[in-house]
Amino acid sequence: MSQAVRKMQYAVRGQIVMMADKLQAQGKDIIFTNIGNPQAVGQRPITYFRQVLALTDLGDYGLDHPEVNTMFPVDVVERARKIREILGDSGTGAYTGSQGALGFRKDVAEFLEKRDGHPAYPGNIFLSNGASSAIESVLTTIMSTELDGVMVPIPQYPLYSALIAKLTGTQVDYYLDEENNWAASKQTLEEELKKSILDGVDVKALVIINPGNPTGQVSNRQELEVICKFCSDNGIVLLADEVYQRNVYAPDKEFLSAKKVALETSGCEHLQLISFHSTSKGLIGECGRRGGYMELHNIDGYVQSQLFKLASCSLCSTVSGQIMTSLMVNPPQPGDDSYELFQKEENGIFEGLKRRSKAVVEGLNKVDGINCNPAEGAMYVFPKVELSKKAIAYAEEQDMTPDTLYCMSLLEETGICVVPGSGFGQKEGRYGFRTTFLPPDEQMIPAIELFASHHRDFSAKFAD
Amino acid sequence: MSQAVRKMQYAVRGQIVMMADKLQAQGKDIIFTNIGNPQAVGQRPITYFRQVLALTDLGDYGLDHPEVNTMFPVDVVERARKIREILGDSGTGAYTGSQGALGFRKDVAEFLEKRDGHPAYPGNIFLSNGASSAIESVLTTIMSTELDGVMVPIPQYPLYSALIAKLTGTQVDYYLDEENNWAASKQTLEEELKKSILDGVDVKALVIINPGNPTGQVSNRQELEVICKFCSDNGIVLLADEVYQRNVYAPDKEFLSAKKVALETSGCEHLQLISFHSTSKGLIGECGRRGGYMELHNIDGYVQSQLFKLASCSLCSTVSGQIMTSLMVNPPQPGDDSYELFQKEENGIFEGLKRRSKAVVEGLNKVDGINCNPAEGAMYVFPKVELSKKAIAYAEEQDMTPDTLYCMSLLEETGICVVPGSGFGQKEGRYGFRTTFLPPDEQMIPAIELFASHHRDFSAKFAD
Repeated sequence: MSQAVRKMQYAVRGQIVMMADKLQAQGKDIIFTNIGNPQAVGQRPITYFRQVLALTDLGDYGLDHPEVNTMFPVDVVERARKIREILGDSGTGAYTGSQGALGFRKDVAEFLEKRDGHPAYPGNIFLSNGASSAIESVLTTIMSTELDGVMVPIPQYPLYSALIAKLTGTQVDYYLDEENNWAASKQTLEEELKKSILDGVDVKALVIINPGNPTGQVSNRQELEVICKFCSDNGIVLLADEVYQRNVYAPDKEFLSAKKVALETSGCEHLQLISFHSTSKGLIGECGRRGGYMELHNIDGYVQSQLFKLASCSLCSTVSGQIMTSLMVNPPQPGDDSYELFQKEENGIFEGLKRRSKAVVEGLNKVDGINCNPAEGAMYVFPKVELSKKAIAYAEEQDMTPDTLYCMSLLEETGICVVPGSGFGQKEGRYGFRTTFLPPDEQMIPAIELFASHHRDFSAKFAD
Repeated sequence: MSQAVRKMQYAVRGQIVMMADKLQAQGKDIIFTNIGNPQAVGQRPITYFRQVLALTDLGDYGLDHPEVNTMFPVDVVERARKIREILGDSGTGAYTGSQGALGFRKDVAEFLEKRDGHPAYPGNIFLSNGASSAIESVLTTIMSTELDGVMVPIPQYPLYSALIAKLTGTQVDYYLDEENNWAASKQTLEEELKKSILDGVDVKALVIINPGNPTGQVSNRQELEVICKFCSDNGIVLLADEVYQRNVYAPDKEFLSAKKVALETSGCEHLQLISFHSTSKGLIGECGRRGGYMELHNIDGYVQSQLFKLASCSLCSTVSGQIMTSLMVNPPQPGDDSYELFQKEENGIFEGLKRRSKAVVEGLNKVDGINCNPAEGAMYVFPKVELSKKAIAYAEEQDMTPDTLYCMSLLEETGICVVPGSGFGQKEGRYGFRTTFLPPDEQMIPAIELFASHHRDFSAKFAD
């Protein structure tokens, strides 16, 4: 069997989560804060999106039903008809073209133009099953030999390390600076590149995650300029994971796309860039839908044709995910029947995330021995936890990382399921974990106290 | 970039199809018979399936709506509630477990038990995005080095050759015998295995497609016994692509699963088998849904854990595909409100396919120079076409295979879009194409005459 698969690790569904599932099956109450899966922890779906989706699936039966307006608002019926026009008579039941239906890709391109103030082209958009499958197809296409490298931020979302291991390429780590709000410095990037060249590695691509996962920072223009220039100067393809672009809570921060910054930075005219978005995150949280897209920018036509061939082999991404992507980028507008409810629902989700992002960071920082950067965006915080020598030694005896020991104890004592920091990568000697702040206030606010009391108990138990 | 991706070929969406899309954009009427995409060529969706799907997406809004029964029959509402119980409060918006929701896997296991008369276990079922993604994950897990081989029938569905190329393994061809209704002989299997061993290849798996794609045969028990015994004796994992199991038209044939035959054949007790099914084919044709499953049988627990890890990395298959899979294996039963309409719709689709499978084969066999085995099942025929030396020479001059020349001419002259035989593999010196018989009678029956007249014209044009 594949040695590459054997070596893969994917901590978001690793050891701690399996134990949590087991404890839950035994009747224990578990607070799942291990994964960005909002609707699994109480977030309600946005009504308009589901209504449109349902009506497109009903097809003629629904659209021509004399009572359709008892259940579906007028603008929902109109939108479902428009989607029907895009998909043609085949509706949601047929494979679309390999890149996804053209009409939805037009929606995405219009959204990108409005967002960035720069042109975008439907021909450069590929609709995908969530962002994950798009990222996989890009890495599959870019990498060829074991010495082909991908620069990955540390800490990172473990999809990247898992895919690089699967594709038997080389992962080149560049550390984000926790003291400097998880920014990547030019110096670090250059040093890591130099080292990898000495090792014979040919760096093909560099990943950024903005807003950050697991780290929650929102990169500013200057930080993005550094990245874009670095990639541009070194002929490295920039892979911009921007799935949390709607999740910005810090009042002094805004999301800037890598494409916008590249196009507004001199010397980056030829930067090769692929950016990713998803319906699973944002204020939608439609994870089960598996919708998303990638946009190619300055990518060589031959490479694009190979990405197209790869997409053809899986025939097409799921049509309901394609529809959800179109709805995400083109939601109800003022004056539409559904606008008011849509706004109310979306705002409710946003305000909840914002409130809890603050509460969790403040609560954790009050605990002696826990230190947590602000959650400016995304859905996560990634606190640092001070562990005693005794705890570290005990973990080693148990053949687990110290933060795995800590997270396992947290799970067993409090029912809170988080992911150990080691699953994302971190500096040697740093320990910590990632937690979401997705569960509703009534669950998340008391959980903050549980984090605190567990830390005190754990520290007492393993006091040096 | 990846040399493996560069080498991949996927003819079902290759050169001819791109030309067809171009001609269609120019206003030419195209009859698309290149791909098993039933709803793209007029097949209507089954009402009950779409109603259940829509109502599950509507969630509380739909289930608690006072007027729900104006649009949704009582049994649809009940089924949507059951699905809601399986998915939990999160409904269709959350990631499920990596293998898919347990309740749906239970439905699949019950279906398999009824179908085969042998036990099946939800723990061995993985729900997937169509069959393609399951097949990819299995090949990814099984293959490790360039000398790891997979035996593939020729002609084959080109997903297999594409994936083996992508994974840089070795494809070991075994030819099906066209004179013997596309059966695989024991002698051929043994010879090919012997040859590959001499080449240093370690054959890990063998693929069968039953009913056949592109060849349309339905394998009988004896043929399947030969395959099962061969795999079992040689420690080869059997991969059974059974996505056309509901598409059997020959009155003297029935679908027998590889699992059933293996369990009823002495010496095959330990056969390692993975079988695949999909919601895209059958009488459903819900291609855009991307639903499907695989069942593992006698697969080593460690390999299964690696398949699970791989599934975890993509988080889960699309939930609407999971629901469609559950509906496919557990449709309305006699006495249910929706049963009569469901039966009528399904029968209509089946009878249409059966009628056209016969008409196409008979029509093609009437043409001098075209020879076509019966379409006992699946959605395709794979006729052999006699080409003149002049045509073959002309094709070579044009740097295309002779059957590509033929199919391009067919497209240009008649608007019928088929796939050249060379895209599936065939004996040297054999030429032909694959066509579906999916378009409705009013399009497909006149198309038969177009196949005939084109063949006469083409033969006259290139007469030796």
